[in-house]
Amino acid sequence: MDKKLVEQITSRDEDFAKWYTDIVKKAELADYSSVRGCMIIRPYAYAMWEHIQGYLDRRFKETGHENVYMPLFIPESLLEKEKDHVEGFAPEVAWVTQGGNEELTEKLCVRPTSETLFCEHYAKIVQSYKDLPKLYNQWCSVVRWEKTTRPFLRTTEFLWQEGHTIHATKEEAEEETIRMLNIYEELCREMLAIPVLKGQKTESEKFAGGEATYTIESLMHDGKALQSGTSHYFGQNFAKPFEMQYLDKNGKLQYVYQTSWGITTRIIGALIMVHGDDNGLVVPPRIAPLQVIIVPIAQHKEGVLEKADELKEELSKIVRVKIDDSDKMPGWKFSEHEMKGVPIRLEVGPKDIAKNQVVLVRRDTREKIMVPMSNLCDEVPALLDNIHNSMLKKAEMFIKENTHNAVDMEEFKAIQNNKKGFIKAMWCGDARCEEKIKELTGATSRCIPFNQEHISDNCVCCGKKADKLVYWGRAY
Amino acid sequence: MDKKLVEQITSRDEDFAKWYTDIVKKAELADYSSVRGCMIIRPYAYAMWEHIQGYLDRRFKETGHENVYMPLFIPESLLEKEKDHVEGFAPEVAWVTQGGNEELTEKLCVRPTSETLFCEHYAKIVQSYKDLPKLYNQWCSVVRWEKTTRPFLRTTEFLWQEGHTIHATKEEAEEETIRMLNIYEELCREMLAIPVLKGQKTESEKFAGGEATYTIESLMHDGKALQSGTSHYFGQNFAKPFEMQYLDKNGKLQYVYQTSWGITTRIIGALIMVHGDDNGLVVPPRIAPLQVIIVPIAQHKEGVLEKADELKEELSKIVRVKIDDSDKMPGWKFSEHEMKGVPIRLEVGPKDIAKNQVVLVRRDTREKIMVPMSNLCDEVPALLDNIHNSMLKKAEMFIKENTHNAVDMEEFKAIQNNKKGFIKAMWCGDARCEEKIKELTGATSRCIPFNQEHISDNCVCCGKKADKLVYWGRAY
Repeated sequence: MDKKLVEQITSRDEDFAKWYTDIVKKAELADYSSVRGCMIIRPYAYAMWEHIQGYLDRRFKETGHENVYMPLFIPESLLEKEKDHVEGFAPEVAWVTQGGNEELTEKLCVRPTSETLFCEHYAKIVQSYKDLPKLYNQWCSVVRWEKTTRPFLRTTEFLWQEGHTIHATKEEAEEETIRMLNIYEELCREMLAIPVLKGQKTESEKFAGGEATYTIESLMHDGKALQSGTSHYFGQNFAKPFEMQYLDKNGKLQYVYQTSWGITTRIIGALIMVHGDDNGLVVPPRIAPLQVIIVPIAQHKEGVLEKADELKEELSKIVRVKIDDSDKMPGWKFSEHEMKGVPIRLEVGPKDIAKNQVVLVRRDTREKIMVPMSNLCDEVPALLDNIHNSMLKKAEMFIKENTHNAVDMEEFKAIQNNKKGFIKAMWCGDARCEEKIKELTGATSRCIPFNQEHISDNCVCCGKKADKLVYWGRAY
Repeated sequence: MDKKLVEQITSRDEDFAKWYTDIVKKAELADYSSVRGCMIIRPYAYAMWEHIQGYLDRRFKETGHENVYMPLFIPESLLEKEKDHVEGFAPEVAWVTQGGNEELTEKLCVRPTSETLFCEHYAKIVQSYKDLPKLYNQWCSVVRWEKTTRPFLRTTEFLWQEGHTIHATKEEAEEETIRMLNIYEELCREMLAIPVLKGQKTESEKFAGGEATYTIESLMHDGKALQSGTSHYFGQNFAKPFEMQYLDKNGKLQYVYQTSWGITTRIIGALIMVHGDDNGLVVPPRIAPLQVIIVPIAQHKEGVLEKADELKEELSKIVRVKIDDSDKMPGWKFSEHEMKGVPIRLEVGPKDIAKNQVVLVRRDTREKIMVPMSNLCDEVPALLDNIHNSMLKKAEMFIKENTHNAVDMEEFKAIQNNKKGFIKAMWCGDARCEEKIKELTGATSRCIPFNQEHISDNCVCCGKKADKLVYWGRAY
């Protein structure tokens, strides 16, 4: 085990895909299972997911949402109620056709998403405007039968939360859609140190059955984009086929307005690819399962382990900390915890004890800092914040340096061939231009950003008048 | 909606099954879905489950367990690896036979429990004694294709946690099995105010593939028992077919010893049937989504709503509290919150304000208590504890009053016909006697309690020498 860990992993710039799977394996994040495309989320990655859940669940509840649990299965006839929705999802669902020893009369799909179930339930429980809004969320797993899969990024089964809300007015529903997108952005920035681009998806990239899809897009180290969370405004598209109606104040029947929004374990893939380096994972401090690892130096010498224990006791009141007192050499331990991306390594040995100090080593920069023991409980949390901020800043710089303007297809293709990252370009709004750009360059429209700029007068593809700035890029 | 709520529900002693489903519906705990046997867990019940999860998850982590996530699907060949296990579960699983548009070459079952997945993973990741023990837990849903279902008690899909651990020694694994059973007992007593009977299942009632199954059994108001949590010791039954081996200190290959343990959303059914009454649900205070409901009296009068708000602000720092300031009559509100089993109702009106007091009404006893406003933050938490303790005591008395000794089948049958609850009787250990008792009386062996007593010398059924005391009863 030790030996494998300190073996060099594939270099990030040499083979990014291999580097990624090396990290997933060696940092013990996920394992393959005997079911094609389904992964085992190991304790270290699951603990990160729990921190993400904890943050989001608190934010959801503060904004009035309640958790529920809907069934895992959807009867075929229910899935088919909204035409675009079933067209979008049916090709990629898993079907249960047999229960115990009996053949089912109607096959059931394993939920790929639960709009139809929420709609059916809401139609039953909502009668009057007094019952609105309904703000429900659920934490669960969903299944989409994917052809090619990669741990966290695209798996047949993944974990997520799906919020589903219904409202009396269009305005309220639209506000909700944006409110939840903002919470996703804040999760990324405040917890994961990942800056994101916020905007709207084009018609061809929006959710099957929706009116408008909003997205946060992040940029991976290899220059590819990752859709990291989406929030959908449905208007009354589902309300009508599902008859979700309520009596308004005047006693008139009205259809509700609806939203849904979700974020998945895919975000763990994002944090690997935004922050990781050739020594392994770099975990953002606020979701790190372990924030400080104490490595005793010359631990057989008198007083070293005792001191390490004492420091651990003290620190464990304010941060997540462990001691590695295994019988491995310190160098091996350093490599292991670097591979796992623990934000701070604390070294303490006889010389440090004599000087009443410890050595703190940052994972992100590998910088060493001497700190008096008496200051530890101030220094460590401050350093964790500092690490968070500089990881975020570095990622912001990376986006800035890897975002390029293109005014025509020549320029667009030249950037695609010689550089990496986002391409900003004007678009006329015609789906055929979008399609053509994809064909020519492999780049898809990532979003129409909320922060619009005017970088030229004409569509990058057809040259016609254009007033929409779009971010383009190859994507996961 | 209001009207339905204050309609009388079915009397508990008249038709217990109908009373139960009335409560599930009117207290808004669960709803039926369009998938047979699958329920929707509504926000009020889900919030209780979250409190149960919060308690258990903390206890699991304190005892060294880590959470993971295993796939939803199990290939048929993997399920078949342990002979008894597949025999026990195969008749009641749902099978996925189609993914997207392709027919699967091997069908996948939707997990009914995840032993086989954990075994396969452990076999891969464990090499040495240094890797042991592995103490994993997972929160998820499982599916068992049930013929007859009832919300919470028996549903095709349910939520649970399943712990799966492997150990170097038999002793360690056996200790773990009991440790986790004790945590379940403590959950029931400390959080749910439900006293349980603790003991071992007989051979015929144990888990498919296990060596020994331990159980906690609770007693419902109608006198039927409910298996409320189980903990299994597997020995090396799975270790061998799955080749879960490790190198011991002497470099010798050894098989691991294994446990698993689980508790489900069924426990919500238990709390309904242990504590509920003819006015509705009675929620144990510590898991109550809402602990105090403030009902303003004559709320249109000056200062009443302001005072109610003020009290809410104050109380919300220490308990879960809301104001019901809807335009319904106080009497309607009382009924609604009684139906939902909110532990304390706080009434405050102009007269109370004049006297600087409020009225607290206990849900469990309906007793009214006048409390000076200035004492509220001391009185309310104390009253919640008091309610918890008296609910627990009442439930303990109920078990005591409804547990009967039988020394022969005459007596056994007489008790079954005229009384309700547990029957204590000696058993020779022969499965045929167990079978015969079930045939004659409908009662199954609930457990061989850890606290053994000697109530007679002979088996209640065959009359042969017997030294095991067994609790018997009809069960859910």
